[in-house]
Amino acid sequence: MDLRKGQIEPILDPNQSTYVYHLALDIGGSLAKVVYFTKDDDYFVDSEEGISNKKALEKSNGSRQYPVLNGRLNFKKFETSKINDCLEFINSMKLHFGGNQEQEIPGSQPIAVKATGGGAYKYADLFKERLGIILDKEDEMDCLVAGANFLLEVVHQEAFTYMGDQKQFVQIDQNDLYPYLLVNIGSGVGMIKVEGEGKFERVSGTSIGGGTFWGLGKLLTNCKSFDELLELSYRGNNRAVDMLVGDIYGGMDYSKIGLSSTAIASSFGKAISDNRDREDYKPEDIARSLLRMISNNIGQISYLNALRFGLKRIFFGGFFIRRHPFTMDTLSVAVNFWSKGEAKAMFLRHEGFLGAVGAFMSSDKHGLKELLANQVVQKAPSKLSFAVDKIIHGQPDGDESIECSVYAA
Amino acid sequence: MDLRKGQIEPILDPNQSTYVYHLALDIGGSLAKVVYFTKDDDYFVDSEEGISNKKALEKSNGSRQYPVLNGRLNFKKFETSKINDCLEFINSMKLHFGGNQEQEIPGSQPIAVKATGGGAYKYADLFKERLGIILDKEDEMDCLVAGANFLLEVVHQEAFTYMGDQKQFVQIDQNDLYPYLLVNIGSGVGMIKVEGEGKFERVSGTSIGGGTFWGLGKLLTNCKSFDELLELSYRGNNRAVDMLVGDIYGGMDYSKIGLSSTAIASSFGKAISDNRDREDYKPEDIARSLLRMISNNIGQISYLNALRFGLKRIFFGGFFIRRHPFTMDTLSVAVNFWSKGEAKAMFLRHEGFLGAVGAFMSSDKHGLKELLANQVVQKAPSKLSFAVDKIIHGQPDGDESIECSVYAA
Repeated sequence: MDLRKGQIEPILDPNQSTYVYHLALDIGGSLAKVVYFTKDDDYFVDSEEGISNKKALEKSNGSRQYPVLNGRLNFKKFETSKINDCLEFINSMKLHFGGNQEQEIPGSQPIAVKATGGGAYKYADLFKERLGIILDKEDEMDCLVAGANFLLEVVHQEAFTYMGDQKQFVQIDQNDLYPYLLVNIGSGVGMIKVEGEGKFERVSGTSIGGGTFWGLGKLLTNCKSFDELLELSYRGNNRAVDMLVGDIYGGMDYSKIGLSSTAIASSFGKAISDNRDREDYKPEDIARSLLRMISNNIGQISYLNALRFGLKRIFFGGFFIRRHPFTMDTLSVAVNFWSKGEAKAMFLRHEGFLGAVGAFMSSDKHGLKELLANQVVQKAPSKLSFAVDKIIHGQPDGDESIECSVYAA
Repeated sequence: MDLRKGQIEPILDPNQSTYVYHLALDIGGSLAKVVYFTKDDDYFVDSEEGISNKKALEKSNGSRQYPVLNGRLNFKKFETSKINDCLEFINSMKLHFGGNQEQEIPGSQPIAVKATGGGAYKYADLFKERLGIILDKEDEMDCLVAGANFLLEVVHQEAFTYMGDQKQFVQIDQNDLYPYLLVNIGSGVGMIKVEGEGKFERVSGTSIGGGTFWGLGKLLTNCKSFDELLELSYRGNNRAVDMLVGDIYGGMDYSKIGLSSTAIASSFGKAISDNRDREDYKPEDIARSLLRMISNNIGQISYLNALRFGLKRIFFGGFFIRRHPFTMDTLSVAVNFWSKGEAKAMFLRHEGFLGAVGAFMSSDKHGLKELLANQVVQKAPSKLSFAVDKIIHGQPDGDESIECSVYAA
């Protein structure tokens, strides 16, 4: 009846033959992320997943039959510089009214929506004026950690390792999940030591992050988007601009300290050449060198902090990664190199939506959150539907939705 | 008579009314450093410094009167890309012959000169062909550490702290010198844990160093030299290109995790703006942002490694710094911020010549090295003469010489 208190009620969404339940926002320096829940229809469990859920439920209330709320968690993102697109999407979907036209009555009270990220403060007035939404602010770190914990605990095949073009899903034993280092690579980079539900500390970070890649890349190439720059880096060779150990040692290794001739001695160190200007370097080589410089650096600082607190697992999230193979490989290699194989780099399927999922979970403290946290179950991975939004072009990560079932036990 | 074995003999140098004794090279990725010793004239000690030296000598041989060899350690550098300038200088000064014309006899055997850095390998043939010099290669790390230890132990007012425009010389108690972290910032950055004479380990490093500053700076501005770029950064404001916490939080701090609104959230993160191209950003702002990004990062990684090994003192050397106040301040602030005041950043007056001094000391294992290491004494700091070489223009660090006395005890 009322979204303001975060209570939930299925309301027909005219744009889809589904119900819109719930909405949360994470508005960062570069991207605004939206997570919302859409309901399909109720049924009684008899599927294979049902059985496992049934078991879960038997534990909780001993019933043998129970209604199931089938639905999806939907993920969508917008550029923060185009925040109006985000407002329009919410408005067109009537997400803030749970999709209910009728609530748009004059003088209706403002509606509270959970939001995190700096934009929750920066754009608070805009959301109020344009949509009558009051952004109910949640702390950024709280949300990042809550989102990561939820995804790691609930979603099958959320975490994976990536090295040498080998992607490998890792099923995390929930009893063995903590402690870990969460590295969120957005415009900047935050590093958080996570020891349990709501038990964490921001231990480090670096200003050399996704905004640096895109900012420097934009100044150095003619790329029109982050993803175009990322695409470009596929084709590049960093040796054209980086000074390698071999360039200094006349092709030789500096074996005494274990530096091979192909190791990077100085990122962009070859660009100091007097007789060459920017035009003489290929944009793809510059993009590649930038990506390697930044990924390497993040991997190194992450490792040093994992070492500091004795954390064996480092989960990398944030929209810098975008499932880009070279980025993930560089981060993995850096962590592996510096830790001599001691620490492991892992990645999250929903890397960019940690904060938004956390904000989503933060609402309705005693209802939907528990329902989901305890009982959301994905269908078999093969049935996962990735509804890539065609409006946002060429995002390797895509906008997607997770089919899930909520048990109204 | 013969420099090949590193034995020393004063020989008239026609270019100065001094004697040239000794020569060593450190050829890095960007700069080639030369250290050579020139002798003035002998005298018997009766000066105030003499007394202290006398005491030192009484310890060593009990004599009450002793001859003094007065001279200078001279420091000179060249761009590695212009290595021929270095060859010509050595040739014109006849440094490889100890300034002795007569040794240039046909068929004279090649002369051995101590050299370190990658260029000692890369340019070995060039030196042999052009000057008949065999570069007697010394390990880079060995030389860096030997040079730093020598300067810290022997030269008054070598080490200083710099913060908030306050430069403060630190007299290091030699019994309390070790252990320390030596961070050498050349084209790339090497980090060495030093525990004593010749007792050290390269523990870390980063490819984001001086070559990155100059390489990226050259691509992004029209600067013609490293020092021009450094000059430029004085006048810049990084807020024009960096995304600050306040830019994300609508001017607010993110106080919960101790990030002020003026903290850099994302270096170059503001350059992602769609409606601005490179031409719309001031070169001085870009230079400033680059310098801050790189200095910050080096300071952070240095601190994390100091912490790892429980090192309270971090000495920064290498030609990236060039006594640039903003660079030193940024490094100091970064170390202070991340270590919460636990660790201290210190700088070396002869920052760029550590490797060359180390190579110089490495020669003549049983003669000049001991003489200097034990008995070189500077005149009172006020009498230090800095003979800045006018040929190399606008180097804040300059080429200089140290007046020193060698006691031929």
